[in-house]
Amino acid sequence: MYTRVSKGAALLTALFIGATPAFAQDAAPAVSPEVQYIFNTLLFLIGGFLVMWMAAGFAMLEAGLVRTKNVSMQCLKNIALYSIAGLMFWITGYNLMYTGVDGGFIGSFGPYSFDPVGGNALDTGYSTASDWFFQMVFCATTASIVSGTLAERIKLWPFLIFTVVLTGFIYPIAGSWQWGAGWLSEMGFADFAGSTLVHSVGGWAALSGALILGARTGKYGANGQVTPLPGSSMPLATLGTFILWLGWFGFNGASQLAMGTIGDVSDISRIFANTNMAAAAGVVVTIVLTQIMYKKVDVTMALNGALAGLVSITAEPLAPSVFQAVLIGGVGGAIVVFVVPLLDKLKIDDVVGAIPVHLVAGVWGTLIVPLSNSDASYGTQLTGIVAYGAFTLAASTAFWFLLKATMGIRVTKEEEALGLDKVEIGIEAYPEFGTGSQRF
Amino acid sequence: MYTRVSKGAALLTALFIGATPAFAQDAAPAVSPEVQYIFNTLLFLIGGFLVMWMAAGFAMLEAGLVRTKNVSMQCLKNIALYSIAGLMFWITGYNLMYTGVDGGFIGSFGPYSFDPVGGNALDTGYSTASDWFFQMVFCATTASIVSGTLAERIKLWPFLIFTVVLTGFIYPIAGSWQWGAGWLSEMGFADFAGSTLVHSVGGWAALSGALILGARTGKYGANGQVTPLPGSSMPLATLGTFILWLGWFGFNGASQLAMGTIGDVSDISRIFANTNMAAAAGVVVTIVLTQIMYKKVDVTMALNGALAGLVSITAEPLAPSVFQAVLIGGVGGAIVVFVVPLLDKLKIDDVVGAIPVHLVAGVWGTLIVPLSNSDASYGTQLTGIVAYGAFTLAASTAFWFLLKATMGIRVTKEEEALGLDKVEIGIEAYPEFGTGSQRF
Amino acid sequence: MYTRVSKGAALLTALFIGATPAFAQDAAPAVSPEVQYIFNTLLFLIGGFLVMWMAAGFAMLEAGLVRTKNVSMQCLKNIALYSIAGLMFWITGYNLMYTGVDGGFIGSFGPYSFDPVGGNALDTGYSTASDWFFQMVFCATTASIVSGTLAERIKLWPFLIFTVVLTGFIYPIAGSWQWGAGWLSEMGFADFAGSTLVHSVGGWAALSGALILGARTGKYGANGQVTPLPGSSMPLATLGTFILWLGWFGFNGASQLAMGTIGDVSDISRIFANTNMAAAAGVVVTIVLTQIMYKKVDVTMALNGALAGLVSITAEPLAPSVFQAVLIGGVGGAIVVFVVPLLDKLKIDDVVGAIPVHLVAGVWGTLIVPLSNSDASYGTQLTGIVAYGAFTLAASTAFWFLLKATMGIRVTKEEEALGLDKVEIGIEAYPEFGTGSQRF
Repeated sequence: MYTRVSKGAALLTALFIGATPAFAQDAAPAVSPEVQYIFNTLLFLIGGFLVMWMAAGFAMLEAGLVRTKNVSMQCLKNIALYSIAGLMFWITGYNLMYTGVDGGFIGSFGPYSFDPVGGNALDTGYSTASDWFFQMVFCATTASIVSGTLAERIKLWPFLIFTVVLTGFIYPIAGSWQWGAGWLSEMGFADFAGSTLVHSVGGWAALSGALILGARTGKYGANGQVTPLPGSSMPLATLGTFILWLGWFGFNGASQLAMGTIGDVSDISRIFANTNMAAAAGVVVTIVLTQIMYKKVDVTMALNGALAGLVSITAEPLAPSVFQAVLIGGVGGAIVVFVVPLLDKLKIDDVVGAIPVHLVAGVWGTLIVPLSNSDASYGTQLTGIVAYGAFTLAASTAFWFLLKATMGIRVTKEEEALGLDKVEIGIEAYPEFGTGSQRF
Repeated sequence: MYTRVSKGAALLTALFIGATPAFAQDAAPAVSPEVQYIFNTLLFLIGGFLVMWMAAGFAMLEAGLVRTKNVSMQCLKNIALYSIAGLMFWITGYNLMYTGVDGGFIGSFGPYSFDPVGGNALDTGYSTASDWFFQMVFCATTASIVSGTLAERIKLWPFLIFTVVLTGFIYPIAGSWQWGAGWLSEMGFADFAGSTLVHSVGGWAALSGALILGARTGKYGANGQVTPLPGSSMPLATLGTFILWLGWFGFNGASQLAMGTIGDVSDISRIFANTNMAAAAGVVVTIVLTQIMYKKVDVTMALNGALAGLVSITAEPLAPSVFQAVLIGGVGGAIVVFVVPLLDKLKIDDVVGAIPVHLVAGVWGTLIVPLSNSDASYGTQLTGIVAYGAFTLAASTAFWFLLKATMGIRVTKEEEALGLDKVEIGIEAYPEFGTGSQRF
Repeated sequence: MYTRVSKGAALLTALFIGATPAFAQDAAPAVSPEVQYIFNTLLFLIGGFLVMWMAAGFAMLEAGLVRTKNVSMQCLKNIALYSIAGLMFWITGYNLMYTGVDGGFIGSFGPYSFDPVGGNALDTGYSTASDWFFQMVFCATTASIVSGTLAERIKLWPFLIFTVVLTGFIYPIAGSWQWGAGWLSEMGFADFAGSTLVHSVGGWAALSGALILGARTGKYGANGQVTPLPGSSMPLATLGTFILWLGWFGFNGASQLAMGTIGDVSDISRIFANTNMAAAAGVVVTIVLTQIMYKKVDVTMALNGALAGLVSITAEPLAPSVFQAVLIGGVGGAIVVFVVPLLDKLKIDDVVGAIPVHLVAGVWGTLIVPLSNSDASYGTQLTGIVAYGAFTLAASTAFWFLLKATMGIRVTKEEEALGLDKVEIGIEAYPEFGTGSQRF
């Protein structure tokens, strides 16, 4: 039974009691349990701060891809959602996800307690606070995904309340099925660092919101034409993408969950290389495809191509050969090029492209795991994908409708035209340059 | 006697001579002194580069919160002050702060020497160059705080000269009292990572400068009205805040000063979690309070709320329970909401909000240490706060007046209207968009 | 014989077979080979992600230093070149540079293979995938340097094709002479982290391109006047500089290539301190010199002063005393102040100042190595500098001419006036503010 927090502990226990764990090839008796504990904890801390940094990446990506009049709002939403995720993953999230799931569908209810000062017993294999920190930043990532898709027309407070529910309940409950050692992990589902658990869950919640919220005014014409509403700053969007790429080394690399053996640290190295390769392939594929299809290279697609490559490799960044990593990431890039116009045909208005990047590429990455990992099966992968999709769509949709019925979720047409910064924040993003040329 | 650089060394010495150090619960005999040395040094290096990165955070925060016409100046001042701090903390700072203080008020005078190539003796417990690097970036942080408050009207060169004095003399001398094992540390003052030593010292120096320099032209009207002079770029301010938040994991986490035992690395993990929690609470409190008070959420207050939460927890990020960390950081957020308008009432013009964030929240964080740390007392905490305030205010004020009397510290009204970029730098921040709409 | 990848391995081999390696003073028997392996690999991973982050630094620096109408293009080129470098350094680069050079001029041909899952044999001393990752990001840095110099008039596709050749062939072949244990390393050439191998190679390729491409329209008048074409965003240029500074701790620090002894980790600490000191000195020197020469401080020169200080210390960041580091970096800063106008006199149009920073300061840093490192000689240093210059200039020039003759490398005058974003990308950087004031 695989759980996201047990590997280091199992190894240490094995060392203590003399047993041979399933991954005995990792065992390196010359590394003492104390040193392993330090390395494992350090991995969580470094991985954790790299993934925390992804919150800034999403903030910059979204600030760059929305119009000037809604930039302050995206800045606020991103720092708010990261904060809410931190609080909720302490109040309910961690225990719902990781405590006492035992092959079931949900953990236990209540706030999480860290080790006392001076540390916990050696046999856990790592500090519990470091583990909490690392798992928390994954929860925050899920919420970041929703923020971008729904930009420019959702009201602030319903978004924040949805974030409370997503980070405190939906994500942790769904996560418990696999990383909390729940029913899907018993079935053999494989999702190394969260193509499905993190990215598709965020993507399904975003899709549900986009459908209920409707498109931005002026985006889709009566007779099928699509009006581009270009983002306010390409350099900020580029910066955001580089931040996310950097953070992903923590996201995938530290999901190895242990660094105290030469096997583990070598695996982390493979993960770094494969992660980078998939992103690189995503970029190159989008550049070539947009040149061929549109006779120009599309920089926003290239940025999303990097992200789609990263999401694609996240379900299994360790097992693929370099060539397989290139293939997996390259298909991710192609997904961006083909799914972005498809969503426009369906009049699903995804402001930053989060649905192709996080949902569709997340599904692709999860489905293709058995190509390189013989422990996984296509049937079980599909089961997991469908289970996560069904639960997240159902829970999100119910909650979006509840919010719509009670406080309303969408600003008025007049407010949308004015821009959310003036209406809800009161502070323009670039006050001396106004809210843009009003061309869009 | 606690000193900021002695813990790892004391532990190693204890291991060598077989004695039991005061923190014997940390001792983990299975980690050899060599491995401990490597871990401790690595902690300083990782912590150091994270805190170095905070210099970029201050640069972006300030570039975003000043008006367009003064943005190049803030960029220059931030890279200059970080450079000056590095040079001065070598020429005089480190030895004034850490060498031979012995319960007194000041260390010794002269440049610092690193270990030779190949390293120093094992029994120091870490590389002295790594320690220098880590302490240096704290010194630079102090100078960054001053830069924001005095923006938009101070001349470049007096600011740079003040930075020389602050980083080479004021900060190190004040710092020696506590982290250099001086009189306050003997008295039992507690300031884990510098709510008082770093943040309030920067804040007092900034307050002194703001009082002597006076407010920006047009900020305060004759009959009490306050004209907002909004910052030029909310996304840059947001980016700066996220950078600072990230860097703070190094600031507080690596202030544990040792990572070579399971106790130390577990404590670092607690510190990461508590630090994040306090910042998150600061954000949520400012969002809720500004919504209630102003019917709109204020994004700059939310950003400053994060920073105030971080400053508040910095005096004691280890001992608090999660709930206490939330409380401490949340009060920090409230401080921003209430102190920003208070300063405006007092006509103290603090361009970026550094006084509420670094000074007031720094005092709060230091005062509340005894809530969670039974080794600290409210009386001693107050003594330390007053001592640092009195010394820094006196030294800064004397030096600001000296600069005012000799070279002058403030640009002319005409130069202020034109903007410092044109007058002193000659390079506009956004030359193709000019210096803004001239609305402000 | 020094090679960039052999130190950790040699030490471990020595430990196994009981021999005394040349650097026996590093040997610390209390650190087991397994723990050393983990530390060495971790060093490559941390150093690698820091240098990867430099790609974002170059992107922001260049986005800030080109005019608004070409910003999207620089964003695209930077994410594309980092991706291409990753793919090419796998397909041909690594093996050309590091496999079977044996005192010669070139390695072997073919894609690189990582360790299997679970890691490789202990006696390599580190994970091969971590080493590949670390060396790859150096290759990408070389390509980044070219991008800035040639901005605003080069066509996208020839640039991308040149990047394929530079990262897959020119850089790796040249690199093999020294870091691959080729002829220059046998001769005793010293270039610790790549002042010549990375920075001057990028600089020579950029110079060659600038000469063949010609200056931007309007930059140089008929009778010798130079029209400044100021960059679009000083805060982005500043951010880029801070990112590069941060990344340089990985660039130089992790070039120690081993962290498993107290000697190695202490040396890394010295490198951190010296690297920071050289950059700080570069900044201060440019500030003082531009104030004296132009009566104003030039922020772009200060930023480039930091980078020139960093490039200067890169050839030997370990051996210098702090004072020597300050001297070496300070001269780097002076180089910027004097070489930028010199290039303008020669009508060589280097948009971002990459030639003074990376080429001239790189040569300076390499030449001055014998000042602090008695193993190096001025003659051999000069030999290496000339060899790298001759090869890179010849290979680059040949390839630029080939591209010029076949597909053309320069956009038309009309396209240049319109801006590359409109012509080749189709997406403006700041669409709501247009392509700038058209003043430039």
